[in-house]
Amino acid sequence: MYRVTVRGHAMVAHSLPDEFFGPAQALHGATYVVEATFSGRELDAHGTVIDIGAAGDALGAVLADLNYRNLDEHPAFTGKLSTTEVIAKHIADRLLDGPLTTGLARLDVVLREHPDAWAGYSVDLDESADPAAAGTTGQ
Amino acid sequence: MYRVTVRGHAMVAHSLPDEFFGPAQALHGATYVVEATFSGRELDAHGTVIDIGAAGDALGAVLADLNYRNLDEHPAFTGKLSTTEVIAKHIADRLLDGPLTTGLARLDVVLREHPDAWAGYSVDLDESADPAAAGTTGQ
Amino acid sequence: MYRVTVRGHAMVAHSLPDEFFGPAQALHGATYVVEATFSGRELDAHGTVIDIGAAGDALGAVLADLNYRNLDEHPAFTGKLSTTEVIAKHIADRLLDGPLTTGLARLDVVLREHPDAWAGYSVDLDESADPAAAGTTGQ
Amino acid sequence: MYRVTVRGHAMVAHSLPDEFFGPAQALHGATYVVEATFSGRELDAHGTVIDIGAAGDALGAVLADLNYRNLDEHPAFTGKLSTTEVIAKHIADRLLDGPLTTGLARLDVVLREHPDAWAGYSVDLDESADPAAAGTTGQ
Amino acid sequence: MYRVTVRGHAMVAHSLPDEFFGPAQALHGATYVVEATFSGRELDAHGTVIDIGAAGDALGAVLADLNYRNLDEHPAFTGKLSTTEVIAKHIADRLLDGPLTTGLARLDVVLREHPDAWAGYSVDLDESADPAAAGTTGQ
Amino acid sequence: MYRVTVRGHAMVAHSLPDEFFGPAQALHGATYVVEATFSGRELDAHGTVIDIGAAGDALGAVLADLNYRNLDEHPAFTGKLSTTEVIAKHIADRLLDGPLTTGLARLDVVLREHPDAWAGYSVDLDESADPAAAGTTGQ
Repeated sequence: MYRVTVRGHAMVAHSLPDEFFGPAQALHGATYVVEATFSGRELDAHGTVIDIGAAGDALGAVLADLNYRNLDEHPAFTGKLSTTEVIAKHIADRLLDGPLTTGLARLDVVLREHPDAWAGYSVDLDESADPAAAGTTGQ
Repeated sequence: MYRVTVRGHAMVAHSLPDEFFGPAQALHGATYVVEATFSGRELDAHGTVIDIGAAGDALGAVLADLNYRNLDEHPAFTGKLSTTEVIAKHIADRLLDGPLTTGLARLDVVLREHPDAWAGYSVDLDESADPAAAGTTGQ
Repeated sequence: MYRVTVRGHAMVAHSLPDEFFGPAQALHGATYVVEATFSGRELDAHGTVIDIGAAGDALGAVLADLNYRNLDEHPAFTGKLSTTEVIAKHIADRLLDGPLTTGLARLDVVLREHPDAWAGYSVDLDESADPAAAGTTGQ
Repeated sequence: MYRVTVRGHAMVAHSLPDEFFGPAQALHGATYVVEATFSGRELDAHGTVIDIGAAGDALGAVLADLNYRNLDEHPAFTGKLSTTEVIAKHIADRLLDGPLTTGLARLDVVLREHPDAWAGYSVDLDESADPAAAGTTGQ
Repeated sequence: MYRVTVRGHAMVAHSLPDEFFGPAQALHGATYVVEATFSGRELDAHGTVIDIGAAGDALGAVLADLNYRNLDEHPAFTGKLSTTEVIAKHIADRLLDGPLTTGLARLDVVLREHPDAWAGYSVDLDESADPAAAGTTGQ
Repeated sequence: MYRVTVRGHAMVAHSLPDEFFGPAQALHGATYVVEATFSGRELDAHGTVIDIGAAGDALGAVLADLNYRNLDEHPAFTGKLSTTEVIAKHIADRLLDGPLTTGLARLDVVLREHPDAWAGYSVDLDESADPAAAGTTGQ
């Protein structure tokens, strides 16, 4: 299995209005440093898993839509708690929306929120003809 | 699959009294920077894999029991070589002792001992009703 | 010259309402990873520049007052743009308010806001009998 | 599953003469920071997955053959594009050539080429008596 | 004193044709991760040392001229050994060529070439009305 | 001013037998990741501050004398508390013992002991004809 990872970041505000989250219920913020890993079983004719430039652009476009935003007002998170896990799945789903992951075996997204905590979402793409279903069937 | 990682550290002394270990047979020490990753197939009602505060507290408690200690005199390592792999399994086992990993799919523990070396232990929790047995059946 | 650095972090929301800041005018957020370096010309009787536990506690207290907050509503930044430089000076000033820096030669505060940008504030403490004045006279 | 990782680096020149690679078609270079992870289901009598000294030496020998070289003139890459993925597989194949991975379950090689991009190659060693075939059957 | 740092990188080939450099005499390459730090004694009306966007753009422009290049054929290094120190001074000189450092007190450039080695160049700008002369008079 | 930094590490045991240090009074250990920075006002004929290979070898020799040791029994720390600051000065003094720093302007040594704490020692070498005296006169 081959893997390629591209990294970017987004600086967002949000709140987690559920008493479960203690002080993080208040409006606060985070720099999310985001790593997206694309895995494939074979290399293409160029000796690559994926066009790394296209991968970086795709991640950059997803992050540009989050950067300098208050996620409490972002339509993707309406009625949801924008936990790090939920944001990771959002980023993965947006990457899966495009043509970029066709033919790949797996996509991993990791969000580092501070030096001592990070979270991620992974989806296997092999066994499903319908990428939208992959998140449901899990790993 | 969703994942949450928390990080901590412990500063320990130990020796590895087996000639296999060359100069590390002598009493020396290490700062172990420890990452514990909790994986689950679904998010709970709060949009999380695990209560990250509880995860951090659980890891912190396990590391507090090791920090500022000479592992040669720690009961968990009596009659054992406290290699990085063995310490990683010890930390995972202690995390599995509590309620924290119930319902989760996998636990990974990584110990970074210097910039050019680290080691870890992983256990799949899905296929076993008895978490204590997971270490035996392996991945 | 001897130096000791302690590190912590705070996750804040804020906006920078001046068109100079482009998209950062909007409410967004950041994880600030904060390093405070205390410098002294001599070591004390314990062989240290400063009680590192007290230094960590002092930095932690300053950061706890910022963490999980919207700086737009924090009294320390009323009528000010909470740029990274301004937050760095705020943290240094709060550290200088206590007894911790008495007798020291220099204090440096660095805030890392994302992997490709950071900012800081430094103050020389040697030439002033009045630490409170040091921030005014600068380096 | 237990894992041990050793890290090294190599500083190479190369070109990627295919218009697919845009500006990277030109002769340029990279510092590849290389991580090799050896995984095993059980620990040996020393409480280790592998002799970490031998692992470091093996990785060091593979990297010494690449370091301070122009990969365009290196026999391992004749007639191939030396993409990061291809170099990762080359390093894994060289590690698999020796006795070091006998009895292990998996080998992962990651090459970090700049702070925002890395790539890797992984091979499962369990299910194949013929390591050379592992790359074909994949994960 | 306030400081702002921006970071970028360039992937270059070069050789160091002097027997002093041993194996680095051969054509090889490096990823230089470059940090440029701009220091000023006072903040401007926006609460900043410098327009961080302009700083990032200026560093990016200097690095774009080096990225994916063979420095042996780059006019800036004709007749010179392109050591890390020399490249650091080149980057600083190019940053000093523009209007960006006017009014600042100091510029530092650091190039990280691998995890265990880095080099830099610093220039104090205070005491000279002519920034072009600063590199000559040194710190 | 030009600077070159080399990095290494040592894994040591030690205790800090003074009640000031709380739990660190007990025998414990640390991985010290050590950075030594050599600064000079001018480059030599090779375009370097210092022979980086010789610098790495010198740092490596100093660290080899500490690595896999119990500092409580190391002659350099007899009758002293081996705090991070004291170890930093020890390493700097050993580097100053050799010919390596002749003609240089400054030496900085930093020891990273865990992700949230580090300490260092710096000495200006310019104003003293006798490098051995530099540690006494301080910065």
